[in-house]
Amino acid sequence: MIKVGIIGATGYAGAEIVRLLQAHPDAQVVWYGSRSYIDKKYSETFGNFYKLVDSKCLDDNMEELANEVDVIFTATPQGLCASLVNDDILNKVKIIDLSADFRLKDVKIYEEWYKIEHKSPQYIEEAVYGLCEINRDKIKNARLIANPGCYTTCSILTAYPLVKEGLIDPDTLIVDALSGVSGAGRGGKVANLYCEVNESAKPYGVAVHRHTPEIEEQLGYAAGKKLTINFTPHLVPMNRGILATEYATLVKKDGALPTASDIRAAYEKYYGKEKFIRILEHGVYPETRWVEGSNFTDIGFKIDERTGRIIMMGALDNLVKGAAGQAVQNMNIMFGFDEAKGLDLVPSFP
Amino acid sequence: MIKVGIIGATGYAGAEIVRLLQAHPDAQVVWYGSRSYIDKKYSETFGNFYKLVDSKCLDDNMEELANEVDVIFTATPQGLCASLVNDDILNKVKIIDLSADFRLKDVKIYEEWYKIEHKSPQYIEEAVYGLCEINRDKIKNARLIANPGCYTTCSILTAYPLVKEGLIDPDTLIVDALSGVSGAGRGGKVANLYCEVNESAKPYGVAVHRHTPEIEEQLGYAAGKKLTINFTPHLVPMNRGILATEYATLVKKDGALPTASDIRAAYEKYYGKEKFIRILEHGVYPETRWVEGSNFTDIGFKIDERTGRIIMMGALDNLVKGAAGQAVQNMNIMFGFDEAKGLDLVPSFP
Amino acid sequence: MIKVGIIGATGYAGAEIVRLLQAHPDAQVVWYGSRSYIDKKYSETFGNFYKLVDSKCLDDNMEELANEVDVIFTATPQGLCASLVNDDILNKVKIIDLSADFRLKDVKIYEEWYKIEHKSPQYIEEAVYGLCEINRDKIKNARLIANPGCYTTCSILTAYPLVKEGLIDPDTLIVDALSGVSGAGRGGKVANLYCEVNESAKPYGVAVHRHTPEIEEQLGYAAGKKLTINFTPHLVPMNRGILATEYATLVKKDGALPTASDIRAAYEKYYGKEKFIRILEHGVYPETRWVEGSNFTDIGFKIDERTGRIIMMGALDNLVKGAAGQAVQNMNIMFGFDEAKGLDLVPSFP
Amino acid sequence: MIKVGIIGATGYAGAEIVRLLQAHPDAQVVWYGSRSYIDKKYSETFGNFYKLVDSKCLDDNMEELANEVDVIFTATPQGLCASLVNDDILNKVKIIDLSADFRLKDVKIYEEWYKIEHKSPQYIEEAVYGLCEINRDKIKNARLIANPGCYTTCSILTAYPLVKEGLIDPDTLIVDALSGVSGAGRGGKVANLYCEVNESAKPYGVAVHRHTPEIEEQLGYAAGKKLTINFTPHLVPMNRGILATEYATLVKKDGALPTASDIRAAYEKYYGKEKFIRILEHGVYPETRWVEGSNFTDIGFKIDERTGRIIMMGALDNLVKGAAGQAVQNMNIMFGFDEAKGLDLVPSFP
Repeated sequence: MIKVGIIGATGYAGAEIVRLLQAHPDAQVVWYGSRSYIDKKYSETFGNFYKLVDSKCLDDNMEELANEVDVIFTATPQGLCASLVNDDILNKVKIIDLSADFRLKDVKIYEEWYKIEHKSPQYIEEAVYGLCEINRDKIKNARLIANPGCYTTCSILTAYPLVKEGLIDPDTLIVDALSGVSGAGRGGKVANLYCEVNESAKPYGVAVHRHTPEIEEQLGYAAGKKLTINFTPHLVPMNRGILATEYATLVKKDGALPTASDIRAAYEKYYGKEKFIRILEHGVYPETRWVEGSNFTDIGFKIDERTGRIIMMGALDNLVKGAAGQAVQNMNIMFGFDEAKGLDLVPSFP
Repeated sequence: MIKVGIIGATGYAGAEIVRLLQAHPDAQVVWYGSRSYIDKKYSETFGNFYKLVDSKCLDDNMEELANEVDVIFTATPQGLCASLVNDDILNKVKIIDLSADFRLKDVKIYEEWYKIEHKSPQYIEEAVYGLCEINRDKIKNARLIANPGCYTTCSILTAYPLVKEGLIDPDTLIVDALSGVSGAGRGGKVANLYCEVNESAKPYGVAVHRHTPEIEEQLGYAAGKKLTINFTPHLVPMNRGILATEYATLVKKDGALPTASDIRAAYEKYYGKEKFIRILEHGVYPETRWVEGSNFTDIGFKIDERTGRIIMMGALDNLVKGAAGQAVQNMNIMFGFDEAKGLDLVPSFP
Repeated sequence: MIKVGIIGATGYAGAEIVRLLQAHPDAQVVWYGSRSYIDKKYSETFGNFYKLVDSKCLDDNMEELANEVDVIFTATPQGLCASLVNDDILNKVKIIDLSADFRLKDVKIYEEWYKIEHKSPQYIEEAVYGLCEINRDKIKNARLIANPGCYTTCSILTAYPLVKEGLIDPDTLIVDALSGVSGAGRGGKVANLYCEVNESAKPYGVAVHRHTPEIEEQLGYAAGKKLTINFTPHLVPMNRGILATEYATLVKKDGALPTASDIRAAYEKYYGKEKFIRILEHGVYPETRWVEGSNFTDIGFKIDERTGRIIMMGALDNLVKGAAGQAVQNMNIMFGFDEAKGLDLVPSFP
Repeated sequence: MIKVGIIGATGYAGAEIVRLLQAHPDAQVVWYGSRSYIDKKYSETFGNFYKLVDSKCLDDNMEELANEVDVIFTATPQGLCASLVNDDILNKVKIIDLSADFRLKDVKIYEEWYKIEHKSPQYIEEAVYGLCEINRDKIKNARLIANPGCYTTCSILTAYPLVKEGLIDPDTLIVDALSGVSGAGRGGKVANLYCEVNESAKPYGVAVHRHTPEIEEQLGYAAGKKLTINFTPHLVPMNRGILATEYATLVKKDGALPTASDIRAAYEKYYGKEKFIRILEHGVYPETRWVEGSNFTDIGFKIDERTGRIIMMGALDNLVKGAAGQAVQNMNIMFGFDEAKGLDLVPSFP
């Protein structure tokens, strides 16, 4: 039984880690860190844990935590993890950072898109981008995991095999994505009030959203070259879910477009044995309701012969595969557990 | 490993049984009955089960089922179970009926409130009302369980200890309840379309709702006399959840109202050791979000000294404790499994 | 054309006054007061008014306002209006206060339930409770209107004729009410975030909600004696709407319960000519969707002969008849306009 | 005062025409056609009209209607209007068809995308595509208006000026759109039940949606050549609203991308005087909440210099500008009324 500490346990992603680990046979949360709620019972901030979690919230003290736990999840705003981590800590404990601090390899791009100074760039090179299905081997021995963002996980997984296999022209890639509101966090902002979000849909961060360079970097590795894409997030009125609809021009071979079989073969090649990626049947497209509460990413596609483009679509639960679930999946890989431990979650519908 | 058959597997309650049993170590669904979808893959009707359930839907044939399974769940409209069940079947297999057919001991009341003829009244006496926390002992050896309704489970559990202990005058009981929309089933009715239900709240079945006599009968046993109550259900725009707000006049003892401690003691007496009933802290009231996806019933109360009344409040997930969860709990009791097996569900929020 | 000033124009009720007055032929908003947004364009805080309202927000200066407008609406938290009003102002301008400051005639009850000191109790006696259908005559010549609350308007109108006619025993009255989230205001509170409210229903302020004494006082006038009632508000996931379900024991006459005709006659007596109250057909109950966006209150009822109680039900839009609409209706009465001017709003569905 | 007949008055679009004409000073609905509800009171199917509309539903008899009214709105499934219209009718009455029957000039494309035979192709040439801001002059004297679809109105208006001015390469155009659920109609389909739609987002009709050729045809006129585009609709959980996010590659001039000023100038050129199109300020993007209940289309844009693309965004209320509002706007133009008559609707928020 490993011991787990969470820094930022009272955000939505932090609470989802708590929920998942309640059902994990080999890991136990012993530190519920939350600077805002120190000494308050954890279950007072999340009533679902009443009678299930009896602990009080503790300070976000990474030094102390490093002595008491085997792995630390940081589910905090960008900047915090980078400002706390040091050699001493990394020698004692594994860190899975759910923020963006160690996702981008080029610190300049980080500072440009996030508008903050990076406090520990010396660990960027070492950090492993924790997209489990792609980087499984590197994750095994990592000390520091950069857990991917919700939009990013969905956007990358949906396009990865086709980019990798050269079936699409990656410079034509456009990612249009929808998100549930839990992705916006639990801060008391007017913009996220029920009445502001309900009965409305809106784009935001158009052409400047911070997940853009993350998608570009990772798909760039697959393409073997630098990419520039368009990514447009939208907020829609639901608690959970990411849906990514992605457009790209298909690459002709001998003057012919790839067929649906070609495309399916590429997806099968990379994901055929992946437990948490479901390639949908022909003519079926992902819907967020079918993945809610689970660690699945559902992927479907449609070739449009009229335009020569393919429309790729992916869906996941932003708090599970898009945050806490993938973080636990990373933990399982790092500690040599069965990768699906604690993650055998049947999507809950309705 | 016992074998399970479900008649009515493509309704919301049926699908929730499937979801719960996916995680049950000792029970396996082998028959997905659904007259409307015969030969169609089950996962085509509920995409959440894609890659998890590979079976096709079969006919609702109880005779045949009785030879193949150990327990049958009937998650069907009222009338069906009563029309299918017979001695031969009951000798071979346990039946847990999620419809109302065997809930009321007085067949006249059944026929009056449900406006249909009861096809097998000879089994009414034998059937056990499957409210686990109250009737656990009788459930153990039952062949036929009448699984309580969602409103009923919530309404009865919330008031039961105070009625039983004589702390409230049961003839003053008024139950005002709210329900999520999944309680209305998966039929294609205009009244349950998204646009009809969204952004609206409405009462229905006022003074004639069929759960009324069910509450009256069960609380009548607790009171030791016949009761007549008011019950008003309301539909509110959410997928899941029942919230019951109940009013009753407190019974004075030596001229004094019972205190909060008296009330709490009564709840503790009956539910203190119950895993699935959470008595909330003083000043905390139930909210459906804190029980969603779980088998919990949360209960809170407030004494109003100004009016001499108590307000009792209960919340549960209508598809879990209000239907499939309680059905599985009944199955566990009947087969001698740990009562919580497959039901260790942490409520999912948000 | 009269000139209108709004103090608290950037709350939901304030914005609804703006929306309604856009369509009012004889009144024009000239002062958009909002301390939090001074100098910011009003349409930046409410994008629906882009190109419709070009003004900037101004300070909440009642002294200055009194010189510039004919009527001031205060759509602010309790305490503010009472702290600003004085003789000089009241001699210059009409005030319609949407807060609770002048609703309760007994200042002690105000201070006890609201937990604040009343800063100008000398105007309480003079203030007219602006429930238009009941107090129309007094409103005509008032200088200061206490505009009723949303729960209160609905709760009182629904029960008033039966209390007034002695058809129900007012001491048995229980009001169980549901509210949309806009009633909670536009402040950035965690409790009102989308993910906290969506997919949940909850009671709050049980037995201590501040609208309780307001209902008691007004229905007490109808009953001709002091009343004590139970009132339980619930928050449900929708933007707008109040639904009140009210229970009371019917008063027998010569040993017989009043009939549905008796009840209907009482409603017709008081509301038969009222434009904004719709008495529903037999067997039809109010639903908030049918009044949304309009100034209507819909009322229905059901006699339960089994229990001797009546269930009265009312629905209105909390931002219109429950706030801004009634405020404009009061303004129309005060200035001698047609009472429905600017309020001919057809409910918008879906 | 002109007389109006509605065929299909009990669908959502039909009911919205009724709502809008309630406030129209020069038009009056005298025929509420609805084959499914003949002889039933109209207000029983839409409770919002209780006490406002007293009529009963009549049959969808276009011949008879033509003798009794000045204009007929057909808010019916495709195929019906084409099967009813004839010379005699068109000589007597104006027809505004909200279905797709007369939107596409090429009958083969109609039959290919809609999979039905066109019953009166002889009127296709004459029919005017009722996109008011673009075809105002032709609408004035038309007998038969093909009222544009909701997705189409939004998609075309958002891109039109940039296509017309040659600022974007129209063959790179990708339209990714979101719709509220009322666009799916009021039929009792499982797919549109509350629980199926709530808490989910999904793409549908990918690369085969029927609004595709409509957008292609109309923008093709602007481009002066045939176009092939991608259009992907998504269903999101809200009652009303269309949001279109459109991507296209900017056309360089002398090696330089158009500037934001160039783009704005193009929008101003075509829409600067249009009452119902609001070009948003720099950095502001449309949100469906700001147009709900109104006839506005809000348009914003963002140039992405990194990719050389522009992201154009438009929002409207699918039942107003996307259906009934535009239909009334067409009626106003046809009858020489002020174009905004009955359409001075302030968007309702929240």
